[in-house]
Amino acid sequence: MNPEGPANRTIALAPDGRAVLVLDQTRLPFETVWKRLATLDDAVAAIRTMVVRGAPLIGVTAAFGLWLALRADPSDASLARARAALVASRPTAVNLAWAVARVAADAARVAPGARAAAALASAEALAADDVATNLAIGAHGVVMISAAWERTGRSRPVRVLTHCNAGWLATVAGGTALAPVYEAHRRGIAVEVVADETRPRNQGASLTAYELREAGVPCVVVADNASGHLLQRREVDLVIVGADRVAANGDVANKIGTYLKALAAFDAAVPFYVACPVSTIDPSMRDGVCDIPIERRSEREVTHVRGRAADGSIVEVQVVPDGVRADNPAFDVTPARLVTGLITERGVVPASDEGVATVLAGAPARRPA
Amino acid sequence: MNPEGPANRTIALAPDGRAVLVLDQTRLPFETVWKRLATLDDAVAAIRTMVVRGAPLIGVTAAFGLWLALRADPSDASLARARAALVASRPTAVNLAWAVARVAADAARVAPGARAAAALASAEALAADDVATNLAIGAHGVVMISAAWERTGRSRPVRVLTHCNAGWLATVAGGTALAPVYEAHRRGIAVEVVADETRPRNQGASLTAYELREAGVPCVVVADNASGHLLQRREVDLVIVGADRVAANGDVANKIGTYLKALAAFDAAVPFYVACPVSTIDPSMRDGVCDIPIERRSEREVTHVRGRAADGSIVEVQVVPDGVRADNPAFDVTPARLVTGLITERGVVPASDEGVATVLAGAPARRPA
Repeated sequence: MNPEGPANRTIALAPDGRAVLVLDQTRLPFETVWKRLATLDDAVAAIRTMVVRGAPLIGVTAAFGLWLALRADPSDASLARARAALVASRPTAVNLAWAVARVAADAARVAPGARAAAALASAEALAADDVATNLAIGAHGVVMISAAWERTGRSRPVRVLTHCNAGWLATVAGGTALAPVYEAHRRGIAVEVVADETRPRNQGASLTAYELREAGVPCVVVADNASGHLLQRREVDLVIVGADRVAANGDVANKIGTYLKALAAFDAAVPFYVACPVSTIDPSMRDGVCDIPIERRSEREVTHVRGRAADGSIVEVQVVPDGVRADNPAFDVTPARLVTGLITERGVVPASDEGVATVLAGAPARRPA
Repeated sequence: MNPEGPANRTIALAPDGRAVLVLDQTRLPFETVWKRLATLDDAVAAIRTMVVRGAPLIGVTAAFGLWLALRADPSDASLARARAALVASRPTAVNLAWAVARVAADAARVAPGARAAAALASAEALAADDVATNLAIGAHGVVMISAAWERTGRSRPVRVLTHCNAGWLATVAGGTALAPVYEAHRRGIAVEVVADETRPRNQGASLTAYELREAGVPCVVVADNASGHLLQRREVDLVIVGADRVAANGDVANKIGTYLKALAAFDAAVPFYVACPVSTIDPSMRDGVCDIPIERRSEREVTHVRGRAADGSIVEVQVVPDGVRADNPAFDVTPARLVTGLITERGVVPASDEGVATVLAGAPARRPA
């Protein structure tokens, strides 16, 4: 089944109103295939097999999954079963548990006959919140791109370096790190993205390149090693990356390699911004470099690379010889001193205790615990 | 034909004295295959198709190629033809032209009947010079590894990060950046190499991993993105890289990505050394960052990755979607201020105008302050 989904969006209610459509991210970047999720089991499988990825998108998919479960059986037992199955589908995703809890609470407040409708409304509100957050990040972040364009006398595209994928593919729509880029593009500002390949999982080379092409924004892929040279020669005007977690002191945990780009941007005096929804800030982490634990992932991500062979098939090739080990830290922490600012939906603040406190002071109550 | 060659060496006279054996680097890291070069054409083809690589090794191969030509026909015309063919086999390699000129001069000094023997002696002297240079670099560089080992109370292996491949595979034997590691290993110092993958051509993941395994030195491969994190957490004791060219002011041109490792080492106060034969120093370049031109190589190196498929075949897979461009600067320049010292065959000197002048003058070894 391959229904056509909306452009530059990862998830949507099916036109017939009886299922959810998700862009199958396991088929990217070489195929655009939509999957129809019609049951709770479909939603659980989509999350577990990484058909959907990215914290906000996983949460929203789970929210719709609860609706699918309640449409089939709105009983208390069904609600409890669905909650458990969804939360277990990717146990470490905080957003997932939070989104499921919110939709379940909205559904539990009403009589069984009204639960499916309540869950659907709640899930749609969650999706709309994500889009609104990203639009706000775009509106705040575009100011820096616009200023860079004016500094060039509008003579050439503004070049924005990004790392990993924090674009519309990682969200419902709009992206976080790429939200300012999309806003600039909408406003007619000439902008070009330099996308780090982002080994070992190549999210930049595959996902960021794919989504920018789909959105019609010029993009050039570079090896992760190239960013220092490009920054040193001022072939990049601005760096914008996403964040997995921001500590109380403004230190930023993000995909492995982010710290190296931050060092190079600092050395070249090129601004380095971190786009992060307020929900990404974790004030329980006082000092990011000291406190944030770093996951070590499978050696195979380093020793093998997945891509498209000449015959069109998707294969994995081994790049490290047999008998040699690999080490694979998945994230690193960029010290706040290297970060020019945090772009949140509430505005741009310094990456510091004060900046973080300012933005948290107005934060909504419904943040993940 | 697959004669057995010597261990941890890339080129040698065949045991029958009638040909040269070279390790076929196009088959690495998954196969160890030796190629017998019996004619000038064999030598030219080996250089042109990158069966041999690395400036010193290319030069020595060409030197032996001249011997092979003169053995078949020692006339002036043959000498001139062989020189031209060898120099044209990889036109941009400075070492190649220089090695060919040296051997040709040694051969031209004697009567035609003695030319083959003179060329062979000259080629063997060139190979021996390379090995001696690398042993001297190892002897100077091992001091830092030994000191690091003492600082740990000999409690754990010293971890040395390297980038790209500047080991025995890039030379006749011994390597440059890895020479101190091999010397440490010979002395019984526990040492482990952290090898950057080195995208886009993966020399670290393939060649460095291969050659360390063959030499029995522990090695762990990491994505290029990981080095910042490892340095920040002090999981690396020392960085040693090679150099393509060192400017008069101590700036270092080397494989793309070297600059990023230097920034991270500096930020973590981990020593960052550049191993470079004196022949790598180019005093005509006053300021490396400003003066050294940076080659842009094929997009395909970024968009595709070569490796071994599940069926054992060597294939290239595409990792960037169709319709997206790539940019591929092949080298970058690390400013001297980030370099702890230059390890040359004449000793370790600071990366500065003074240090470079000292080593060029041939002055005795001096440690950086």
